[in-house]
Amino acid sequence: MNRELQTIFEKLSFCLETRKFADLRIILLDLEPADIAGFMENNLDEKEQLVFFRLLPKELASDVFVNIETDTQERIIRAFTDKELKALIDDMFLDDTVDVIEEMPANVVKRILKNSDPENRKQINELLVYPDDSAGSIMTTEYVSLSATMSVESAFEKIRRTGVNKETIYTCYVTDRRKRLLGVVTVRDMLLANNQDLIADIMDTNVITLKTMEDKEQVALKFSKYDFIAMPVIDKEGCLVGIVTIDDAVDVIQEEATEDIQKMAAVLPSEKPYLKQSVWSIWKARAPWLLLLMISATFTSMVLSYYETNLALIAGGALYAFVPMLMGTAGNAGNQTSVTVIRALALGEVQFKNLFKVILKELLASLLLGLTVGIVCFLKLWLIDSLYNAVTIEIAVIVSSVLVLAIVMAKLVGCLLPLVAKKFKLDPAVVASPFMTTIVDVLSLIIYCTISIALLG
Amino acid sequence: MNRELQTIFEKLSFCLETRKFADLRIILLDLEPADIAGFMENNLDEKEQLVFFRLLPKELASDVFVNIETDTQERIIRAFTDKELKALIDDMFLDDTVDVIEEMPANVVKRILKNSDPENRKQINELLVYPDDSAGSIMTTEYVSLSATMSVESAFEKIRRTGVNKETIYTCYVTDRRKRLLGVVTVRDMLLANNQDLIADIMDTNVITLKTMEDKEQVALKFSKYDFIAMPVIDKEGCLVGIVTIDDAVDVIQEEATEDIQKMAAVLPSEKPYLKQSVWSIWKARAPWLLLLMISATFTSMVLSYYETNLALIAGGALYAFVPMLMGTAGNAGNQTSVTVIRALALGEVQFKNLFKVILKELLASLLLGLTVGIVCFLKLWLIDSLYNAVTIEIAVIVSSVLVLAIVMAKLVGCLLPLVAKKFKLDPAVVASPFMTTIVDVLSLIIYCTISIALLG
Repeated sequence: MNRELQTIFEKLSFCLETRKFADLRIILLDLEPADIAGFMENNLDEKEQLVFFRLLPKELASDVFVNIETDTQERIIRAFTDKELKALIDDMFLDDTVDVIEEMPANVVKRILKNSDPENRKQINELLVYPDDSAGSIMTTEYVSLSATMSVESAFEKIRRTGVNKETIYTCYVTDRRKRLLGVVTVRDMLLANNQDLIADIMDTNVITLKTMEDKEQVALKFSKYDFIAMPVIDKEGCLVGIVTIDDAVDVIQEEATEDIQKMAAVLPSEKPYLKQSVWSIWKARAPWLLLLMISATFTSMVLSYYETNLALIAGGALYAFVPMLMGTAGNAGNQTSVTVIRALALGEVQFKNLFKVILKELLASLLLGLTVGIVCFLKLWLIDSLYNAVTIEIAVIVSSVLVLAIVMAKLVGCLLPLVAKKFKLDPAVVASPFMTTIVDVLSLIIYCTISIALLG
Repeated sequence: MNRELQTIFEKLSFCLETRKFADLRIILLDLEPADIAGFMENNLDEKEQLVFFRLLPKELASDVFVNIETDTQERIIRAFTDKELKALIDDMFLDDTVDVIEEMPANVVKRILKNSDPENRKQINELLVYPDDSAGSIMTTEYVSLSATMSVESAFEKIRRTGVNKETIYTCYVTDRRKRLLGVVTVRDMLLANNQDLIADIMDTNVITLKTMEDKEQVALKFSKYDFIAMPVIDKEGCLVGIVTIDDAVDVIQEEATEDIQKMAAVLPSEKPYLKQSVWSIWKARAPWLLLLMISATFTSMVLSYYETNLALIAGGALYAFVPMLMGTAGNAGNQTSVTVIRALALGEVQFKNLFKVILKELLASLLLGLTVGIVCFLKLWLIDSLYNAVTIEIAVIVSSVLVLAIVMAKLVGCLLPLVAKKFKLDPAVVASPFMTTIVDVLSLIIYCTISIALLG
């Protein structure tokens, strides 16, 4: 947080303490809703939050509300009278209301719906139908629709008349009577056209559309590909049912990246910011994977136990010392590849049909990498490790050759797992990254034990 | 890629082969530049790309150009005559020209600058000064500026007159004669105001601004926080020097997430899509970290060698079998925490001043997690592993207690490393994630060896 904002926050706290509410309102009018929400969350306790929220100028309240945490939202709604609640909801955009509703318990949802006006309630109910990961769930029904026969002048009139409550007015949607999407026209097009021009003549009829059930990750990718500020969502009949605006797409991009990162680190995704997560919810997000991976590591113990007697006989047990290095390097090598491929899949840069291209690339890269790392490892064992450990030249050769094989194997597993997961419609980030380590660990141990026992045993 | 697009691409290829260039142009006019670029990159060889690019309608060429890969851009520029090049550059937005220039070799840059008109060349040179990770490097100087004394009507006239070449016209910037930023006004505000209203009366004077040298990651966070479609960039004197538009912020968000993911997986970041990376560049991105981590794993070998004689004496060497499981689980536990904290730092949810809050949270969570995993591990050792290994109840108790300690230790290292890295202005993703495993490996080995030797040796 920058210092300027910090000073303003201190002033706000002072006004609150000294009950200078008129001064407080003046400062608030100069602030962005997101910053006011930040102040509420980080500087006030639960009781103060409520007092403060009621002090907000009416035109700010709904914008601040959509920026605060779900828990705080719920407390405010519970404390509000029906009248206060109705005023708040009437001021919010429909897609934001739907976002709030999706996080609330049933009795709160009931109160929100009861206090929205009938037309809004109908639209909210329609939006609530779409699954959480679909384009439908992030769209809004508040867009400007025009008809093709309008002149630019009358289109501007319509925007002036109805624009206040629309999420964006800059992209307008041209529909026929049955609400089928005929084209889009931007305010820019209209400003650069003549007042008498017909919308039909200046609209763009080649519209990139979204489908209601399209994965919202796909939606985000389309936004970053095409650089639009809004995209229309159509149903199976080609009728316009809503629009998605870029701000919601940006949120999806951030969330999806965070989710993928969490999954790759074997944590169940959470939507709450870290500092707001309770110890209990952290435990719930981490324990399942930690347990699963600990138990799956049983296989490495089994491999080591199986070869134990033979391994102990070789070179006075000196081979044990390299197990962590071998497993670690193989794990790192596999991780490099799996994470790269998972991200490329998420960005749509790689698809399953590229399987052989990817395998070939990884095979060549892993041979190069294996040789590089293997040679350096041999030199290290021979020149450095021999100073404190009984490393003979045979051991150095075996360990570094096993390292080359382990790296090639790890890279192949690392690229195959996410691609195959994607093919079977599983989440590459979940299937590939945490499990990969266990698979690579077991395989590299088996390679190490069999080869060293065969050659030295 | 959807099927519709695939069909269109097949038609394009057909038109190219049969030299039906008129038909080709008609199809092209209905396509988005990003899709035409996709067609060029994936369906045409180098020679065809050049023929095809020359066939593009003039109004599309520059939009397609900014969407293709750097290598292809370079080939096209080299093949172009000065006249062709000048036409292309004149049509491009300044920030896009700068992006292209930054990736080109010196002689190509020289040709681009030579063929831009003098006013553009001046502005390009100004933009080229800013470092790669700054707001200045992603801004454009093509914005609409208004003066406070204008009426809404004359503001619209100015937008109509100058808007064609501006990156966005929807947010306009009000400056005084010395180019100091006085406020912003949106086309929406203007449309909802009266024609005679003065800009001074409807403009918003509380502007959230960016600084030229501000980290572009911060810029991206501000966009996702405030939901603007453009933000002004000011210099130290408060003068407006450019604007950043949301489409560039979206690219930054995607790139930064990809970079962080790559760094956490011990890969040097690359801007090229995976399939376009050569085996050689993959090697260069991965070999340094793989080597460094392999060499740093020497420490685990040293620890194991040091305790070797004593460890081998205990329980017939049965303790070795649990080393991978212990190190693996500790590594996973630490990784869960470090990755969570790194992402929270990147999103601005956590700062160094939250250090003690984070440590406390992780300490409590790690105790809970340690106990959970420790108890399950004990049961597993006692009931399952004893079937195939000489696991006595003492060994089961020691291994599972060490596991609890190792998890707590790993979680503390996992949260401390990224926070301390941030404090010292190092990149948390680089310092914390790949190194964390090595540190945690060594520490958990030391805990395991000392405790088991002390109790059983």
